[in-house]
Amino acid sequence: MEFTKRLAAFRERMRREKLSAFALLHLSNLRYLTGFTGSAGLLVVQPEEAHFYTDGRYREQARLEVQGAQIHIAGPAGLYAEAAHQLARVRRIGVEAPTLTLAAAAALGGKEWKNRLYPTTGWVEQLRAIKTPDEVARLRQAAQLAASIWPRILREIKPGNRERAIAARIEFELRRSGGDGCSFEPIVATGAHGALPHARASAQELKQGDLVVLDYGVWLEGYASDMTRTAGVGRVPVQAREIYGAVLEAQLAALDTVRPGVPTPVVDGAARRVLRKHKLLRYFVHSTGHGVGLEIHENPRLGQWMRRDQPPPVLEAGNVITIEPGVYLPGWGGVRIEDMVHVTASGAEILTPTPKELLEL
Amino acid sequence: MEFTKRLAAFRERMRREKLSAFALLHLSNLRYLTGFTGSAGLLVVQPEEAHFYTDGRYREQARLEVQGAQIHIAGPAGLYAEAAHQLARVRRIGVEAPTLTLAAAAALGGKEWKNRLYPTTGWVEQLRAIKTPDEVARLRQAAQLAASIWPRILREIKPGNRERAIAARIEFELRRSGGDGCSFEPIVATGAHGALPHARASAQELKQGDLVVLDYGVWLEGYASDMTRTAGVGRVPVQAREIYGAVLEAQLAALDTVRPGVPTPVVDGAARRVLRKHKLLRYFVHSTGHGVGLEIHENPRLGQWMRRDQPPPVLEAGNVITIEPGVYLPGWGGVRIEDMVHVTASGAEILTPTPKELLEL
Repeated sequence: MEFTKRLAAFRERMRREKLSAFALLHLSNLRYLTGFTGSAGLLVVQPEEAHFYTDGRYREQARLEVQGAQIHIAGPAGLYAEAAHQLARVRRIGVEAPTLTLAAAAALGGKEWKNRLYPTTGWVEQLRAIKTPDEVARLRQAAQLAASIWPRILREIKPGNRERAIAARIEFELRRSGGDGCSFEPIVATGAHGALPHARASAQELKQGDLVVLDYGVWLEGYASDMTRTAGVGRVPVQAREIYGAVLEAQLAALDTVRPGVPTPVVDGAARRVLRKHKLLRYFVHSTGHGVGLEIHENPRLGQWMRRDQPPPVLEAGNVITIEPGVYLPGWGGVRIEDMVHVTASGAEILTPTPKELLEL
Repeated sequence: MEFTKRLAAFRERMRREKLSAFALLHLSNLRYLTGFTGSAGLLVVQPEEAHFYTDGRYREQARLEVQGAQIHIAGPAGLYAEAAHQLARVRRIGVEAPTLTLAAAAALGGKEWKNRLYPTTGWVEQLRAIKTPDEVARLRQAAQLAASIWPRILREIKPGNRERAIAARIEFELRRSGGDGCSFEPIVATGAHGALPHARASAQELKQGDLVVLDYGVWLEGYASDMTRTAGVGRVPVQAREIYGAVLEAQLAALDTVRPGVPTPVVDGAARRVLRKHKLLRYFVHSTGHGVGLEIHENPRLGQWMRRDQPPPVLEAGNVITIEPGVYLPGWGGVRIEDMVHVTASGAEILTPTPKELLEL
């Protein structure tokens, strides 16, 4: 039922843009439109029919999962060759520019691919950015599952324990609680490692007085959660407490702007303003947040807006986003605080129930 | 030192193919050429200089890791815009066709991208397929680490335990043993799930008399391991034992062909011949194996060869590959047995020390 509606909305967009065929490859888009959860597939959408191509490994799975499209199992020539056959007479084929590679383009569009393929960006992703109540429920459940293990993770924050051991514990507890695995590799970054926003958990030991950044999420029925907390390994120095306070103030200021109709740079700007006041803006090296759903990073993006030729994205009811300002001082460490937030008709529902005051454990 | 050699080999290929600039994006290729382990980067190689672009999140990490290239931190306009500047006067830019998307191509090559970009396939991957002794040592260590947890995983194979709980245990034990996480999501597929070669671990309970397929690997210092075993939950029916025997015979037959100079379809064909004899060939729905290294699937591929315009790949000393025939009966289940193998000057070194006789636990 949901899949029928989604495919209809996509076909409506095709009709508006006068496309009689579209070849989709991006896996989370395939999942959104057909229900397929495997790792190799191609969906050809035409006004009156849809064809789903996968390989022999997924014969059974496609039969169980795919809705709204006829299933084809590609031979050794591959998915593209198989779909190219179906598309042989189509002059203009819509494709996903951020996913389709030059190699795939040539296999799909043949010698004339440069003229036949019509690059588009974000058609399905735009539909995906507005979650149905059912999707919000899954995201809420994923966020709650991730938060539910937090007390057990806190017990691991003690001098001498290793970043890697804590990451292993996070993975294990998420699975044990019914999650389908980590939605990204958990970040456990202590001391100076905290200055690497995407640090990998290492053999580094936690030391008394360090801050430790913990950023993790879980997959649940295809949907991702994402949260970050920063905690002290015992009492932390005054400077750490001050920086923590500034980041929390920035995070709350950004949260406070969230409601439908607000341009995303306004949310980002609210966090930046607070950090500028604390003379920490130059240490905030990423954007304030991003959508979450079938992917860990999706629309809308909440950052500075540099393009003059287009207006920035605006928040809409049904968006589910993160708000996650951070400060990273090379050689010293970092602080990041991240919540998942559902944009409602009237404002914001914070999906991450975990407290945000600084814990000194 | 290693990085210098690799970049020199890559430049030599550029010289042979008369390219004065190459823009690389594929992350494992960046890691191979520069040492960078982050998730966003772009490397421009020119005859006398090399430029590495990343974003603010990786400023520190790039400084610590990247060798042989000047580091640039891209602003909000992004990596491509930054690199496009450096490449402004280059008429023909080598790019990786299997990685570069249409969107990235346009950002990198500007309006004239269709004429300026020169698509290539597998230049770095071809270098990567021949491992140095140091790389083989890391892969051996990864394979041994993964094998070392096997006895602890066997204890979980009992009626009533869930696929998902076993997958969680695999992840946890791999990390606890010093691994950097799973090299892919562990497959634990019991009963009829075993017929899905890439099944996700589910809430399904193991039942007395079922076969269970376990396929997992670990990351260790950037290198992946990969192994599969199939075990019985207690005594299994005669048919299961017969199919197991056929798959093992096919796996041993394929292993027996491995040595330098052997075309990869010969290895694949050896497995197929055995399964045909047992009337199981139609249930073998994937290829016999693949290279392993900085990626879980890399060159060489060991499958049937359908192209008439090119000879198939040939095994070379220094390849590290998997040998993993399998049989999948819809509605019944599956059997797969997979080892990692190092192609040596004289033959094959099996890197997976785990026994292969059928265990009925």
